[in-house]
Amino acid sequence: MTGRSDSENAGSGEFSFIARHFRPLAGAEALDLRDDCALMRCPDGEEFAISTDTMVENVHFLPDDPPETLGRKLLRCNLSDLAAMGARPHAYTLNVTVPRGGRHDDNWFAAFSRGLAEDQKRYDVHLIGGDTTSISGPLVLSATVFGLLRQNRALRRNGARAGDDIWVTGTIGDAVLGLMVLQGKLEDTSGFLAERYHLPQPRTGLKLHRIVSAAMDISDGLIQDCGHIAAESGVQLVLNAKDVPVSEAAASLGQTLLMQRLSGGDDYELLLTCPPERSHALQSACQDAGIPVHRIGQVQTGRGVRLLDATGRDIVLEQGGWQHF
Amino acid sequence: MTGRSDSENAGSGEFSFIARHFRPLAGAEALDLRDDCALMRCPDGEEFAISTDTMVENVHFLPDDPPETLGRKLLRCNLSDLAAMGARPHAYTLNVTVPRGGRHDDNWFAAFSRGLAEDQKRYDVHLIGGDTTSISGPLVLSATVFGLLRQNRALRRNGARAGDDIWVTGTIGDAVLGLMVLQGKLEDTSGFLAERYHLPQPRTGLKLHRIVSAAMDISDGLIQDCGHIAAESGVQLVLNAKDVPVSEAAASLGQTLLMQRLSGGDDYELLLTCPPERSHALQSACQDAGIPVHRIGQVQTGRGVRLLDATGRDIVLEQGGWQHF
Repeated sequence: MTGRSDSENAGSGEFSFIARHFRPLAGAEALDLRDDCALMRCPDGEEFAISTDTMVENVHFLPDDPPETLGRKLLRCNLSDLAAMGARPHAYTLNVTVPRGGRHDDNWFAAFSRGLAEDQKRYDVHLIGGDTTSISGPLVLSATVFGLLRQNRALRRNGARAGDDIWVTGTIGDAVLGLMVLQGKLEDTSGFLAERYHLPQPRTGLKLHRIVSAAMDISDGLIQDCGHIAAESGVQLVLNAKDVPVSEAAASLGQTLLMQRLSGGDDYELLLTCPPERSHALQSACQDAGIPVHRIGQVQTGRGVRLLDATGRDIVLEQGGWQHF
Repeated sequence: MTGRSDSENAGSGEFSFIARHFRPLAGAEALDLRDDCALMRCPDGEEFAISTDTMVENVHFLPDDPPETLGRKLLRCNLSDLAAMGARPHAYTLNVTVPRGGRHDDNWFAAFSRGLAEDQKRYDVHLIGGDTTSISGPLVLSATVFGLLRQNRALRRNGARAGDDIWVTGTIGDAVLGLMVLQGKLEDTSGFLAERYHLPQPRTGLKLHRIVSAAMDISDGLIQDCGHIAAESGVQLVLNAKDVPVSEAAASLGQTLLMQRLSGGDDYELLLTCPPERSHALQSACQDAGIPVHRIGQVQTGRGVRLLDATGRDIVLEQGGWQHF
C-alpha cells in the first residue's frame, strides 16, 4: 500500500482499491500511503515494541469466518503481544494476499476494513503501510504492530522466580472450544465460545511494571506457554487445574474438555508471575483496567510444567497428549 | 519467531527450527527471538522509515528460483524503498508461510537463511522478529523493513517541479527481460538479466537530501512510476526513450523490446527529479557511492507521462499497452 502494486493484481485498479479501503485507515505517519515508506518517530525516553503475525485461511481462520473479524483478529493477536510486554498500541502495517477468482470482492473488503476501523478506534492505533498481492491459493494476512513503552520497562518472560505465584487474566480455553463449535464438534447456543475464537480480547491497558516478575500472552495454549516461561526463567511452573478460570459457556460443556482447554491455543489472555507480596498490587492494577485475574499455581525450583488435579496428584503431560496417573 | 508457534506447524519442533535458521540472524533488539515482541530504539533526532512487501510464489518469484536469492530479493525490494526515501537500513521482520508437503526442508531453509545472512552483512541490517506458518498453497514471504534517517530529511514523491530534470540510476528493464529469459522467451547466455531479476541492487548509501526534488524507486516499471511522481507532484514527466540507460545484455537483444523494458517492473533503480543547477551535485553524490546515473527527460507543467522517440515524436502510452504514431 506504500505505492507498491502487484502487477498481476489489477494494475492501476489497485491504487483506487487502496484509496477506497485502506487510505481511510491511514494515520499521518503513513504519508497517505502515497510514498515509498511510512515515517514514524519515537517520543523521548520511549522505545518501540514490535510484533508480527501471519494468519492463513484454513489454518488460523475458516473460509466462512465473517470478514469483519479477520483483520481485527490479526490485529488483536499482535496487540496481545504488545500487552504481554507492557506496551501501548500505536500503529501497524498490513499485508493482504488475496486469492484469485473474485470471492474477495469489494463488499468483502468493505467489511474487512470496517472491522479494522472499529478496532483502530477501540485500541487507538492506525495503519501506516502495507502491501496487497494475489495468490493462487488461500487468503494470507500478515500484520506488524508497533507499541510504545518507556525504555527499560518491558515485561519479559525470563523474570519468574521460585516462590512467585502464577496468574492468568480472563478465562482459559474458550477459543479452542469455539473452534470445535464452528467445526460442528460441540454445541454452544450462547455463541460465546465462537465469539472468543473470532475476536480475542487483548489485555492492553494494564500497568504491571514493577508488579509482575514475568509476562507473556497465551497463544499456544496455557500449558505450552507456561513451558516457555519455565524455560526462559529457569524454573518450574506448577499449575492447579481446578483453579484455572473457566467461562460459564465452557463449564456447561463439562469437565471432560479440561485438557483441550488447557492445551488449546488462541486464548490471548496474559500469563503472569508475581511475588506473593505484590498480589494485592496486581489485583488492583487488573481491577483498575476492568480485567479479571486469577491465581492458578506457583513457581518452584526445577524445570518444565506440572499440572495438579484437585487432590494434588500430578496429571502427566506428554508431548502432544496427556494421561492421568 | 517471537515465540509464536503455528500449532499446525510442528509444535515444539518449530522452536528448534527457529533456533537453527533464524536465531543466528537476530540482532540484540530481537531479544533472541524469545519474547513476545522485539524492542527497538530510535537515536535522538532521527525517525524510522518503514516499508513492507509480500512476495508470492508463481507471482513474484518462480518455484525453482534458488532459495539463497528469495529472502535476499524480498529484503532488497524493501531496502530499495528505504533508499528512495533516503533512509539507511537498520532492521527487519520476516514472515514465512511454508507450503505443506516438505519441499521446503531443512536444506532449503539453510540456503534461504544463508542468503539472508550474506545480505545482512552487506547492508548492515539484522532480523528483529517474525512468524512461521504453514499453508496448503504456494510459498508466501513478507518482510517489514526499518530504516533510519534524520528527521525532516525524507525524500518524497511530491517535490518535482517544472524545469527539473529526470534522472535514473543504473539501467532500466533488465529484470523484466530476465524474467522472460527464465520463462524461456528470450536467450541471454551471459546470465546477467536473470541475475538482475533474482537479485536487485537497492541503491542505498546515496546522500541526496537538498539535491533532488523528488525520489522513488522503480518497482512497477519506469513509465508507471513516472506517473506516480507526476500525480503526487502535480506535473508532467517527459521522457526521451533514447536516453533511458540500457545494459549491454539488454541492448544485444535489440530495440524491439524497448516498451517491455520501459514498462516492465522489478528494476529497483531510483527515479529522481533534480533542478538543473544541482545536476553536478547529483552526479557527484552518485559517483561517491559508485552508482551510475543518467538524465532521461524533463519535468513540465501539465499531467501524466509523455514518452518521446529519437526524433522527438510522442510514443502514445495506453493503459496496458502502447502504440507508435
